[in-house]
Amino acid sequence: MVAELISVGTELLLGNIVNTNAQFLAEQCALLGLSAYNQCVVGDNRERLAEAFRTALKRSDIVILTGGLGPTEDDLTKEVCAEVLGIPLVEDAHTRERLEAYFADSVYKEIPDNNWKQAEVPAGAKILDNANGTAPGLILEKFGKSVILLPGPPDELVPLFRDQVTPYLRALQPEYIFSRMVKICGIGESAVEEKLIDLIDGQTNPTVATYAKIGEVHVRVTARAAGEEEAKKLIKPVVKEIRSRLGDSVYSIREEETLEMAVVGLLKKYGLTVTTAESCTGGLLAGRLVNVPGASEVFREGVITYSNKAKKKMLDVSKSTLKKYGAVSEQTAREMAVGGVFATDADACVAVTGIAGPDADGDKPVGLVYIACYMNDKVRVEKFLFKGNRSKIREQSVVKALDLLRRSILDNYRK
Amino acid sequence: MVAELISVGTELLLGNIVNTNAQFLAEQCALLGLSAYNQCVVGDNRERLAEAFRTALKRSDIVILTGGLGPTEDDLTKEVCAEVLGIPLVEDAHTRERLEAYFADSVYKEIPDNNWKQAEVPAGAKILDNANGTAPGLILEKFGKSVILLPGPPDELVPLFRDQVTPYLRALQPEYIFSRMVKICGIGESAVEEKLIDLIDGQTNPTVATYAKIGEVHVRVTARAAGEEEAKKLIKPVVKEIRSRLGDSVYSIREEETLEMAVVGLLKKYGLTVTTAESCTGGLLAGRLVNVPGASEVFREGVITYSNKAKKKMLDVSKSTLKKYGAVSEQTAREMAVGGVFATDADACVAVTGIAGPDADGDKPVGLVYIACYMNDKVRVEKFLFKGNRSKIREQSVVKALDLLRRSILDNYRK
Repeated sequence: MVAELISVGTELLLGNIVNTNAQFLAEQCALLGLSAYNQCVVGDNRERLAEAFRTALKRSDIVILTGGLGPTEDDLTKEVCAEVLGIPLVEDAHTRERLEAYFADSVYKEIPDNNWKQAEVPAGAKILDNANGTAPGLILEKFGKSVILLPGPPDELVPLFRDQVTPYLRALQPEYIFSRMVKICGIGESAVEEKLIDLIDGQTNPTVATYAKIGEVHVRVTARAAGEEEAKKLIKPVVKEIRSRLGDSVYSIREEETLEMAVVGLLKKYGLTVTTAESCTGGLLAGRLVNVPGASEVFREGVITYSNKAKKKMLDVSKSTLKKYGAVSEQTAREMAVGGVFATDADACVAVTGIAGPDADGDKPVGLVYIACYMNDKVRVEKFLFKGNRSKIREQSVVKALDLLRRSILDNYRK
Repeated sequence: MVAELISVGTELLLGNIVNTNAQFLAEQCALLGLSAYNQCVVGDNRERLAEAFRTALKRSDIVILTGGLGPTEDDLTKEVCAEVLGIPLVEDAHTRERLEAYFADSVYKEIPDNNWKQAEVPAGAKILDNANGTAPGLILEKFGKSVILLPGPPDELVPLFRDQVTPYLRALQPEYIFSRMVKICGIGESAVEEKLIDLIDGQTNPTVATYAKIGEVHVRVTARAAGEEEAKKLIKPVVKEIRSRLGDSVYSIREEETLEMAVVGLLKKYGLTVTTAESCTGGLLAGRLVNVPGASEVFREGVITYSNKAKKKMLDVSKSTLKKYGAVSEQTAREMAVGGVFATDADACVAVTGIAGPDADGDKPVGLVYIACYMNDKVRVEKFLFKGNRSKIREQSVVKALDLLRRSILDNYRK
C-alpha cells in the first residue's frame, strides 16, 4: 500500500519551522511496511490544498494530512478534505464534551466561539481523541482510500499516531511488519557493514539495514509475517547473530533507549556513581547524563575545568604535566579523570579535553580530543581526531565519552 | 515571483533524515521576497521526478531542486531536468578540471569512472562551483523560468546558496528586499506584539513580524526598495523604534548573533569572568557558553551540583537552608550563586536549581526553577514555572539563566 504525506501550513512554506512531522511520519510509515513516493507541503489555502489532496488521492491508498485542524479561520484541512470527498460536517457530541471539559480546566474565562468548530467532524469519521490538545485526529474512509488528519503540534501528533493510527494502519495490511533497532557505538558504519555484509545483502525476511548517526550506527532488522509472534520469531535469531558478531559495541536493542540511558542503567545495575571532568565539551557530557530521569542516583556532581588554572585547582592536574604535555594530552586527560574521583566520592570519572576549534593549538590540530575514564584504580585513555565544526566535534566527544564509560563498566564489573 | 522547492531523495521519503534543506531554502526565499505556495519531496525515480518537475514548472517562476547530483546511478536530477527542458548534456571543461584537482588532493588512488558524470552539465547552464564537494550547482534558464539545481549535503548547499544563488535571485527581481532580525529575550511573544501592534498592523514597507523561539522572540523587519541603501534606510528608523520600545529586552539586531554570543560579548566588553553552578540543567548552561569560540576569556570553570551533598561541599550551601527551604528554593539558588563566586575567582556566578521532572518534589511542581545571579556583591534571584517536558524545561532554564546574566551585566556595568 502506498501512503502519502501532505503537510499543511504557511509557516513551513516560509521556513519558520523545520518539518520534523514529515520525518517522523515517513519513518513510522516505512516501519509499517507502507511504500512512500511523494510528500508535499501546501499553505493554508483552500484551492491549493484541495488540489494537493486530489492529486494524492489519485496516486496513493493512504493520505496523511497534518496541520490546519485548529480553531482559526486559517485552519481549513478538515473542511477541504470533507468537501473533496463529498462528506458533510456534523457536530460530534463526544468531541464537544471533551472540548467543554478542556476549557473548564483551563485558564480561559470565556471560550472563544470559534473553538466549537473543532467539534465538527466529517460524518462517519473515526475520531482519535487528542489527550494533549483540542483538535481530535480524524480518519475518513471513502473510495477505498484512507484519509488521516492529524494536528500539527508534534506533542499532539506523535502520541496520536503511535497510540491510535499505528494499530489502524496495521489492521489495513495483510502482513504484520515488525522491526527492532540494534544500537551500536564505538565502531564505524563501514566496519559494521563489513561484519554484517552477508546479512545485509543476503537476507530478504527479515531485512537488515544500517543508519549512521553522530558517533553511533543503528541497524534495523525488519520482518514481515502473518502475525506479530511470527514476525518476532523471524527477527530474534538475526538480532542474536548481529549481537554475537558485534559484541560489546551493541549498547541496546530497544528503540527508545538512548546511549545515556544505557549508561545510567549500567551504573545503576552495578551500584556505581560517576562524576565528569570536562574541558572542551564544557558541560555537555554531564548534560547528557542528566537527560535521563533518575540520573541523580548515579550522578551527583561534575566539574567544568575550561582553564588550566581550574584543572589544577579543581582536579589537581600537575603544573608540570600541563607545561610539558599541554592541556590537550593523554597525560592531562588521565590526571583529570583521577582528580575527578578524588575531588568527589564517585566511583568513576570521565574526563574530556580537546580542541573544538575553530583555532588549532600550536601543532595540535582542531578535532584532537583525549577522553579518559578512571574506574577501579585503573585509567583508560583514548585519543580521537574528529572531523567537523566546533559543535560536531563536541557532540562526537560526548558520545565517545559516554561509550568509554559504558565499556569501562562492562570490562570492570560484568561477571 | 513564485519559487517552489523539490527535494529529491529516497532517504527523505523513508524518514531517515529531516529535511532541513527545505527549511533553509524556504526561509532564504522568503527573505528574498519570493512567494512560496508548494514544496515537494520525491524519490530517486525518473518518472515521478519528471512529473513533479513539470508540475512545478507550470505553476512557478523559479524551481529549486536539491539532491540527486552525485555520481551514482541513483542520481538523476540533472538528467531528468535536462530532458524535460529539452537541453542536451555536455561535458564542462572547467568542472572536469576541478574534479581532477579534487581527486588529486584526495585519498582515492583510482577515481571511479562514474565520477566524470559530474562534469556533464546541461548546455548553457550557469555553473556554481562547489567548494565543499564534487557536484557543482547549476542554473538553467528556459521558457522564462529559472531552474536551480543544488547538491543535497547541507554543508555544500548552504554556502552555494548564500554566495552564488542569492545574488542571482536578487538580480531577477525588480525590487531589493532587505531585512533585519531584532532578537528579544525576557518578554513573551504576546507582550512583544502588544508593544508593537501598531507597527505590525500598520506598516507595509517595512513589514514587521514576530516569531516565537524557545525562551526568545525574534522580530523581523523587512523592507522593499529599488536598492540596498534605500531598503536599509527604510529599516533603520523602525528597528530604532522597536529597540526604544523594548529596551533591554533586545539583545541583538544581528542575524547570526545568538544569546550566548551576546552574553560572552558583554562579559568581554566589561572585562568580566563568570562561573556557573547548575543543578537541573546539569551542565547545559556552561555548554551553551562554551558554544562561543573564545569563551575561555570569560568562562574558566563551572560546577554541576546535582545532589544536596555536592551543593554543600562545592558551593557551601548551608545545611539548614537545604533542610528548611529545600534544594529548589530562592534561598538555595542565592547561596549557590554566592558560593560559586567564592569557590572560584570569577566576577559573577549564575546558578540554576529546579525540578525538570517527570516527578514533582513533594508540593513543588515540575517546572519550578529558581535562577540566581551574583555580581558586584548583589544577588538577583528569579522564579519561573516552565511548561513542557524535562528537556523543554531545561532548555528554557538555560535561556533564562543567560538572560539574567545579560541583564545583570547591563544593570551593574553599563555607564
